[in-house]
Amino acid sequence: MQFQDWGEERFIQHLANNFPVKGHIVGIGDDCAVIPGELGVAWLVTTDALIEGVHFLKDQISARDLGYKTVAVNVSDITAMGGEPKYAFLSIALPKATDCAWVCDVIQGVKDACKKWDLLLLGGDTVGSKRDLFLNLTLMGSAVATKIKYRNQAKPGDVICVSGYLGDAGGGLKAIQEQIPKTEDIEYLLHAHFHPEPDPKQGMWLASQTEVHAMMDISDGLDCDLKRLIKSSQNGAVIETSKIPISPILARVSLENGWDTLQLALTGGEDYCLLCTVSADDFDIIQNSFQKTFGLPLFSIGRITSQSSQLIYNENGKAFQTNYNNFDHFQ
Amino acid sequence: MQFQDWGEERFIQHLANNFPVKGHIVGIGDDCAVIPGELGVAWLVTTDALIEGVHFLKDQISARDLGYKTVAVNVSDITAMGGEPKYAFLSIALPKATDCAWVCDVIQGVKDACKKWDLLLLGGDTVGSKRDLFLNLTLMGSAVATKIKYRNQAKPGDVICVSGYLGDAGGGLKAIQEQIPKTEDIEYLLHAHFHPEPDPKQGMWLASQTEVHAMMDISDGLDCDLKRLIKSSQNGAVIETSKIPISPILARVSLENGWDTLQLALTGGEDYCLLCTVSADDFDIIQNSFQKTFGLPLFSIGRITSQSSQLIYNENGKAFQTNYNNFDHFQ
Repeated sequence: MQFQDWGEERFIQHLANNFPVKGHIVGIGDDCAVIPGELGVAWLVTTDALIEGVHFLKDQISARDLGYKTVAVNVSDITAMGGEPKYAFLSIALPKATDCAWVCDVIQGVKDACKKWDLLLLGGDTVGSKRDLFLNLTLMGSAVATKIKYRNQAKPGDVICVSGYLGDAGGGLKAIQEQIPKTEDIEYLLHAHFHPEPDPKQGMWLASQTEVHAMMDISDGLDCDLKRLIKSSQNGAVIETSKIPISPILARVSLENGWDTLQLALTGGEDYCLLCTVSADDFDIIQNSFQKTFGLPLFSIGRITSQSSQLIYNENGKAFQTNYNNFDHFQ
Repeated sequence: MQFQDWGEERFIQHLANNFPVKGHIVGIGDDCAVIPGELGVAWLVTTDALIEGVHFLKDQISARDLGYKTVAVNVSDITAMGGEPKYAFLSIALPKATDCAWVCDVIQGVKDACKKWDLLLLGGDTVGSKRDLFLNLTLMGSAVATKIKYRNQAKPGDVICVSGYLGDAGGGLKAIQEQIPKTEDIEYLLHAHFHPEPDPKQGMWLASQTEVHAMMDISDGLDCDLKRLIKSSQNGAVIETSKIPISPILARVSLENGWDTLQLALTGGEDYCLLCTVSADDFDIIQNSFQKTFGLPLFSIGRITSQSSQLIYNENGKAFQTNYNNFDHFQ
């Protein structure tokens, strides 16, 4: 059997089965691993690889954006569990004919991101590669152990929320694929694609609220990631599609180009905003406080149900289930 | 300019310049980064990538050995600073046609290594790759902060020691390259190449001795790594070539095949034993205690001098400097 027939989820399950953990340590299966430390503080650790030809095309992303994004996607994972990102380790594998100026620009992008989030790059590995470029970043963050949020804590009745517009980054990728001329609107979508901006302050704030039950980031699209959340929490979800936050710009560009906005919002991926579930009784207070604290809305988009692993969408009173081919690195 | 003209050392220097650290944190430049923690304990963190076609050929290493070696090379880095390896994070990028059984064998090798060194694999990233296979492991270990050893602490007059035979792994690689038929001797060399066995207990023991000043592991060959040590410590070294420990098997195979044993011992690389410098007055005591504790010799091979960055070899009374082309991933 080939690896593409097995798929990513099954492989992760295989790893989780082979590497069980003990004590208060959390291993494979959430956005980060959790390592309890001294004085009630825990380490959160995440690692993400970006591969040429799979995650990026060298002629379609600037070196500086690539360096930045390598850091940003990991910051999103630490944010998703309520941690403060701190120390980064970068492995980079380069074909020997790679242009030095291009590599320095990648490093500059990493530096930009480290400055933005006050991270220290403390090490890594620099190696040759035969053909393709590989970047891998491991990021350590810290959190008060009792305040860390997990994806498996959603409760039936919880309000499902997202912290930002969905589909913009997917729209940016689609604009590249369809070679749409760059207008101001397209530039906005491209920026969302190349320059994700997870906000650890939002993650830490949400994590410190006891009324917030489950949390994770949206990296592979709401449809895929919410399915992971409900599978992990052993419940279901109903989403009101009319409540899914779409930016006015994505709505406009979609209309102009005949894109399916809902599909982009659900499966475009790389939104790198937060998905969380909040106790229904306290949702208004949390939403208002979030708005007051960050000047940004926390969007309510649906409810957690007790119907195990069932994700239902409601659109104009009609319920449907999707059968999207969510992004799989091996397909 | 292409990256191969720049080379690995210059790139690491570029990174170190761009990512300075503050406080008691140690960043780029030693075997591990050091992150001070609570109660006098520090984290040691290292990361190493293995790339198909550069570090290994898929048809020349078993999947299980590959998985094992990916862990072992990182254990060697933690050992080199006197730490206890603890938590691992594995990124793996696979072409979609990779055979599942082969991948499971890689994971089994990782598991073997985790069992051997009592490590927990806590996470990672599994992604597709267009063509080449890529493995990256980040390893966290812990150490008593005051007992960590660095490569920049060698003092003039120190005895230079290594903790094992040199050149066996390099001999194994040469046997593969020259397609030498497998005898018992060759199997021994191949085992050294595929199955490095760093011993964290040795590292911790040496690190706890105040008479041991500088320590690092030998991964790229004694010549290359000792040059790094003396550059970092701002002194020089004289090595007595007759004292370099060569296994009787490597000596025999070299004789049979016309290999230059000394060159293999100095530049073969992947020995993954320890290189340390010990206060001359206390060397005998340290050597005896090491022998008593581990049942293995600590080999004295030369002295640290005050001649900055100068590495001299003494052979039969004649002094010479080498001009080896040490392994560079970009050449």
